[in-house]
Amino acid sequence: MMKGTANMKDRNETATTLTQLRLAKRSPEYWRVTFDHPPLNIFGPEMFPQVNEIMTAIETDEQVKVVVFDSAVEGFFLIHLDFLANLDNLVHLPPGPTGLHPWPEILVRLSRAPVVSVAMIRGRATGMGSELALACDMRFASREKAILSQFEVGSGFVPGGAPMARLSRLMGRGRALEVLLSAEDVPGDLAELYGYVNRSLPDADLDGFVDALATRIASFDKQTLAHTKRLVNVASLPPDIEIESGWNACVASMAQPATQQRIKWLLERGFCKPGDAENHLGDFVGQVGR
Amino acid sequence: MMKGTANMKDRNETATTLTQLRLAKRSPEYWRVTFDHPPLNIFGPEMFPQVNEIMTAIETDEQVKVVVFDSAVEGFFLIHLDFLANLDNLVHLPPGPTGLHPWPEILVRLSRAPVVSVAMIRGRATGMGSELALACDMRFASREKAILSQFEVGSGFVPGGAPMARLSRLMGRGRALEVLLSAEDVPGDLAELYGYVNRSLPDADLDGFVDALATRIASFDKQTLAHTKRLVNVASLPPDIEIESGWNACVASMAQPATQQRIKWLLERGFCKPGDAENHLGDFVGQVGR
Amino acid sequence: MMKGTANMKDRNETATTLTQLRLAKRSPEYWRVTFDHPPLNIFGPEMFPQVNEIMTAIETDEQVKVVVFDSAVEGFFLIHLDFLANLDNLVHLPPGPTGLHPWPEILVRLSRAPVVSVAMIRGRATGMGSELALACDMRFASREKAILSQFEVGSGFVPGGAPMARLSRLMGRGRALEVLLSAEDVPGDLAELYGYVNRSLPDADLDGFVDALATRIASFDKQTLAHTKRLVNVASLPPDIEIESGWNACVASMAQPATQQRIKWLLERGFCKPGDAENHLGDFVGQVGR
Repeated sequence: MMKGTANMKDRNETATTLTQLRLAKRSPEYWRVTFDHPPLNIFGPEMFPQVNEIMTAIETDEQVKVVVFDSAVEGFFLIHLDFLANLDNLVHLPPGPTGLHPWPEILVRLSRAPVVSVAMIRGRATGMGSELALACDMRFASREKAILSQFEVGSGFVPGGAPMARLSRLMGRGRALEVLLSAEDVPGDLAELYGYVNRSLPDADLDGFVDALATRIASFDKQTLAHTKRLVNVASLPPDIEIESGWNACVASMAQPATQQRIKWLLERGFCKPGDAENHLGDFVGQVGR
Repeated sequence: MMKGTANMKDRNETATTLTQLRLAKRSPEYWRVTFDHPPLNIFGPEMFPQVNEIMTAIETDEQVKVVVFDSAVEGFFLIHLDFLANLDNLVHLPPGPTGLHPWPEILVRLSRAPVVSVAMIRGRATGMGSELALACDMRFASREKAILSQFEVGSGFVPGGAPMARLSRLMGRGRALEVLLSAEDVPGDLAELYGYVNRSLPDADLDGFVDALATRIASFDKQTLAHTKRLVNVASLPPDIEIESGWNACVASMAQPATQQRIKWLLERGFCKPGDAENHLGDFVGQVGR
Repeated sequence: MMKGTANMKDRNETATTLTQLRLAKRSPEYWRVTFDHPPLNIFGPEMFPQVNEIMTAIETDEQVKVVVFDSAVEGFFLIHLDFLANLDNLVHLPPGPTGLHPWPEILVRLSRAPVVSVAMIRGRATGMGSELALACDMRFASREKAILSQFEVGSGFVPGGAPMARLSRLMGRGRALEVLLSAEDVPGDLAELYGYVNRSLPDADLDGFVDALATRIASFDKQTLAHTKRLVNVASLPPDIEIESGWNACVASMAQPATQQRIKWLLERGFCKPGDAENHLGDFVGQVGR
């Protein structure tokens, strides 16, 4: 019946100033955003405006119904802030319209957008990568290749993108406290048990599953999707004040000399560079205070 | 000790004007409500007053402690509204005492009743069938034969009986959004993983398990059950305003021409009739917008 | 780097007036509290001040970061009130600073303390033992040897230490109602499925796992742990008024003649004594009203 609205006529890739991620429109209704900033998909100062541009496109496009976030980088979905980069611009960004710092604000915008967002997680999603996944409406992980975590507490600082607010509501207090306070790697099976992701699938099945789901959702009525999501938002999203408070706690913890010392120790041993430190981040942050 | 209060002396079946469901008192304290409206256990205009009558009996009886809802129809626990019936009476029912439309109000009454309610799900529970199960205090499913879903978004409208409010609190935002926005069939195993049901049991064990649980609860003190449930209600029930907002969104979405077109397409292909459409409802609603 | 702060120099055991539990400082940052009141680890009038003393130490110590609660008694983590003891002192304790009865108040203090608390559950945790575990930040159970429950409703009274508030938020309404209203034993596997515990581990692995986790957390920054937990508290802890209401409902239910009769029946058949009644408490309370 409605074949015409969901076909592939606009399947050309967009070409923008995006250099660290790509936007591909599989159809006008179904978009893919692919993080492609090898070797680590690390979140540096250039990543922020690019994610922001995508976010604005998602909010303003009249046709898009579903957006899938994935990665083109082997081993990494999207990870944490690049502490080796010049972060002055990022840290001093003015607040956005909600009064939140632009990073938590982007996450809030994603959660509230009248578009369905899906994180397809293969490789490591930690720090901002985990926070972006948590701001998506759904998360599906590779059973063999996904590792989620909030590594921050192990590095001496409070996470900034509101995982305290989101994980508590997603998996309950006990498991949220474990994920946050252990700062430990969470592989696919455990992520499914805890509800960190909707489901973990065999790696070979993940792409097919997510693509079928997104294609299905893209065939539904945009207004109905948006109104149904809006009502789930009322029941499940944290208030902005919790997110603001989490951000402020992050900034305050970063200013502690003990934290700066921990980060320095980590950076001297390979943090933010390809290699063992990032490949085994859970183990790595477990060494700093011993 | 207290044998006298829980014995079988009143074990006679009630005989009322009920034609689409049956009430059987296994004891004064333990009731069974069995949906028996073959071939689909579809929810038509006559079902509503019958469920309402049962609900009033549950609320006003002084002895009943536990009510189990089940089905006598192979393949179907209880499904959605019968779009082939004359729905004028149903749609134009005046609001109940809480100000809610009578359907969400019945669900609210069931959730708040000082009686323990258990859904024993074998076959399909979708639409109002899923909503009724979600309003029960507990849900147990046949691992092989239960299929739960909220198919509505696939048909172009927002669900009306508050699954946005209830699923979000039961299984967390991510899984609730998946169930609602995918409108997909959820079989027993997945329903258990997601917390859609308390547990899924091998089909052969389901009746015995639920009967033993209900018999056990029926042996406990009625006031203690009621007060304990009341405190769980405070911690877990959605506010009425969320339920009202969900109902209003449902009504508004039904009025969209695009939705009417989707429902017409579905009805022309077997929706609300025995056969493939209802037997594979998840697949079926995935075809309408392609 | 920070070896000096987490070393074993203070590994001597404390020696206080504690007779039913022990406090061992594995390091200044990592404490173990071991319930050792054979044969049942039952909660009698002397247990309360000892738990209270530990709680005050946890709150006031400047170095402790993580506390693990475990048991030295085969078969029992910590169980319910000792109804055979003189409970006058316990029942008539004046309210604490929050206005709550001292028992729920201790639980609230534990949940809010700027220290990470972990329950390592081997054997039975029921009544106050389950409530203490639920007030901890995390719970890990022996897959073979842990049994959790809230047996109270089966004995005719409402639980007093707020499991209605905590279980509802931890595992969702349906499973919380089942645990509370069935008053049934919950073994390790089911406790994990329901989220009653973070994880159940093979008994042989439990000690090693919990010790490694606690050692890891003890190596992290105390302020960062505390601030991160504080933000999870905002998102996940019940308001005190719910806890107060639960306590009041417990006290009121205890005063019912029918409840006193049930407790008398139980006591005459071995409740609160070593043997079948306590070893199979779930089955046992299922007999009283038959």
